Amino acid sequence: LTSKLPDVGTSIFSVMSQLAAECGAINLAQGFPDYDPPQALMEALARHARTPGHQQYAPMPGLPRLREAISHKTAAVYGVPAPDPNTEITVTSGATEALYAVLAAVVRPGDEVIVLEPAYDLYGPAIRLQGGVPVYVPLRIPEFTPDWDQVKAALTPRTRLMMINTPHNPSGAVLTPQDLATLAELLADTNAFLLSDEVYEHMVFDGQQHASALQVPALAERSFVLSSFGKTYHATGWKVGYCIAPPLLTAEVRRVHQFLTFAVSTPAQHALADVLLDPEQYTTLPAFYQRKRDLFGQLLQGSRFELLPTPGSYFQVARYDQISTEGDAAFAQRLTREFGVAVIPVSAFYHHGLDHGLIRFCFAKRDDTLTLAAERLRQI
Amino acid sequence: LTSKLPDVGTSIFSVMSQLAAECGAINLAQGFPDYDPPQALMEALARHARTPGHQQYAPMPGLPRLREAISHKTAAVYGVPAPDPNTEITVTSGATEALYAVLAAVVRPGDEVIVLEPAYDLYGPAIRLQGGVPVYVPLRIPEFTPDWDQVKAALTPRTRLMMINTPHNPSGAVLTPQDLATLAELLADTNAFLLSDEVYEHMVFDGQQHASALQVPALAERSFVLSSFGKTYHATGWKVGYCIAPPLLTAEVRRVHQFLTFAVSTPAQHALADVLLDPEQYTTLPAFYQRKRDLFGQLLQGSRFELLPTPGSYFQVARYDQISTEGDAAFAQRLTREFGVAVIPVSAFYHHGLDHGLIRFCFAKRDDTLTLAAERLRQI
Ligand SMILES: CSCCC(=O)C(=O)O
Ligand SMILES: CSCCC(=O)C(=O)O
Repeated sequence: LTSKLPDVGTSIFSVMSQLAAECGAINLAQGFPDYDPPQALMEALARHARTPGHQQYAPMPGLPRLREAISHKTAAVYGVPAPDPNTEITVTSGATEALYAVLAAVVRPGDEVIVLEPAYDLYGPAIRLQGGVPVYVPLRIPEFTPDWDQVKAALTPRTRLMMINTPHNPSGAVLTPQDLATLAELLADTNAFLLSDEVYEHMVFDGQQHASALQVPALAERSFVLSSFGKTYHATGWKVGYCIAPPLLTAEVRRVHQFLTFAVSTPAQHALADVLLDPEQYTTLPAFYQRKRDLFGQLLQGSRFELLPTPGSYFQVARYDQISTEGDAAFAQRLTREFGVAVIPVSAFYHHGLDHGLIRFCFAKRDDTLTLAAERLRQI
Repeated sequence: LTSKLPDVGTSIFSVMSQLAAECGAINLAQGFPDYDPPQALMEALARHARTPGHQQYAPMPGLPRLREAISHKTAAVYGVPAPDPNTEITVTSGATEALYAVLAAVVRPGDEVIVLEPAYDLYGPAIRLQGGVPVYVPLRIPEFTPDWDQVKAALTPRTRLMMINTPHNPSGAVLTPQDLATLAELLADTNAFLLSDEVYEHMVFDGQQHASALQVPALAERSFVLSSFGKTYHATGWKVGYCIAPPLLTAEVRRVHQFLTFAVSTPAQHALADVLLDPEQYTTLPAFYQRKRDLFGQLLQGSRFELLPTPGSYFQVARYDQISTEGDAAFAQRLTREFGVAVIPVSAFYHHGLDHGLIRFCFAKRDDTLTLAAERLRQI
């Protein structure tokens, strides 16, 4: 069996989490909290786990009451018309499944897909599995902002899809309303769709607001907008996400979703529907993570890491050139093995493993975890 | 957006479940029980839903303790060497994700995949989404046994994969050890892999034993064997399945799985690991479903449906030619709307909607449900 993805190894997140476990290192690598979901959500899952009749297949597009709650929340948060739960919202096995389903639904052999790099590690391989051709456009370092002229130059008649991710993993950069307006103009003359990965939507800091593709009608009409309960509710292990898209696009996503996973955990969907209409969790999340970002920054003062600005997400990128020139992957490994702090090399987000001397920390960790990690990092 | 699957509508299981709900019909269509998982399993999920530290990403291939339990159980049930949890077992979002991941991992544009028809509705479209070419070989009616000479004739140098499903959905037919030996001989000279969908493994009746591809070394070495906890534990809504395959094949499945869904619900995996080593559920399942099959058969005596033999699965196929000649799809609709019993037209399992005058009942229903449905069916 010759591999269809011969150059793709195990996801860097698995690799570094496993190395962290082997070395007993603090895991600031894979993006997940080391605290639990809100008590009310855990209790809700416990309740539905025991509810007769809640253990069989959910409807293929998602539980109606969860889709209705998503619709309501989306309208309330973004000031947009409520997406139709019946025709515009699909619940998926995490945003990961939504990403794959969108790609499988729209990308045909030879189609080009524009990806801004650095990019989440699945984008490229998942495009290639459809026979698509990823066309990489670099983000400007160190701000990780798109150069829209370069995006414009990359658009061709074969461009089927453009992918954006805001707040951005790994950098935490956020797109502005102006960015989205520019993108809308660029796409206006094309037949390209937009996949907008907004899983960190509720982690935007310093008084800025998340700008969603849903808020720009000229984008929304051609967009698949993805989000994830795992990120917002500290429940990455539940694997529930969703895709919002206009009816014709949603129909295509569902055609694939029904064959990819068919449906998503019924008890988990009920539990999320129970809590989603209470805005508490997502309205307090920006301050919650801004405090962690600031704490981690303060704790690293006096270290030899240079922290780049982090306007959003739960990731902090840092330069380490005062410490080493060995390259991101080697340095990340050594940090894990020798200094007991696992991180992600930013080079893993580049298709050619391009090295900018950057690593990524996840600061979705308890204060004591961040404190202990920073103590170790200050000693380097 | 022109569809990549223009001829594929919403899955027949969704369509008929929705129609059943609209008509207030008894749903003997979509395959799921109208009773709950064992109490111990529901309690286990409730427990893990509340366990701190059990709410974040499981390892990508599955929770180690669940993979170990699967390994142990597989060896115990089939008398085979225990599959290696580290390199041969992958936990997936239901057997559906496993099916899709295997197809995405091995099928390339132009590859042929042999499918025995009638076949589960996702096989064909999921093959085509990889650019593969489904090559359909009909099962003999009414026994739904393979004609191995026809399979042999269908094998070409382009055959990448052969798919089998035992016990078989929709017919309940089971392959014998002799069938598997014949298949092993046929595949011996080829480079074809085998996907063996064994999700109904614990529903084989009348003293017969399930014959697994794992028990035939010449097959096991080229096989992806799929199973599903949803079927065995009356928990179709939990969406946890798995794939057993030799290390090199497992590596390819995981390469895709990590981009399809990445991981599966952590609390659900813990809960299943808690109960799996107790053989009670799966050792009692054959008798449990054999009794339901027999009950349903008795209840339908005197009706104008002719029930075909059902050696396995929780499905019962019936001829309705004494009642109507309108065709499977029309008859299934009318049965739902006018007589209040939803069923699946067997034509939905044929890529051209071929009609044999057959419908499928799911008898994974409470005795009172079966009794009420049979009362209605006897009046036709
Ligand atoms: C699916 S594991 C990766 C989690 C994550 O989003 C990240 O670490 O970037
Ligand atoms: C995934 S819904 C279909 C359930 C099933 O396996 C069937 O009804 O055949």
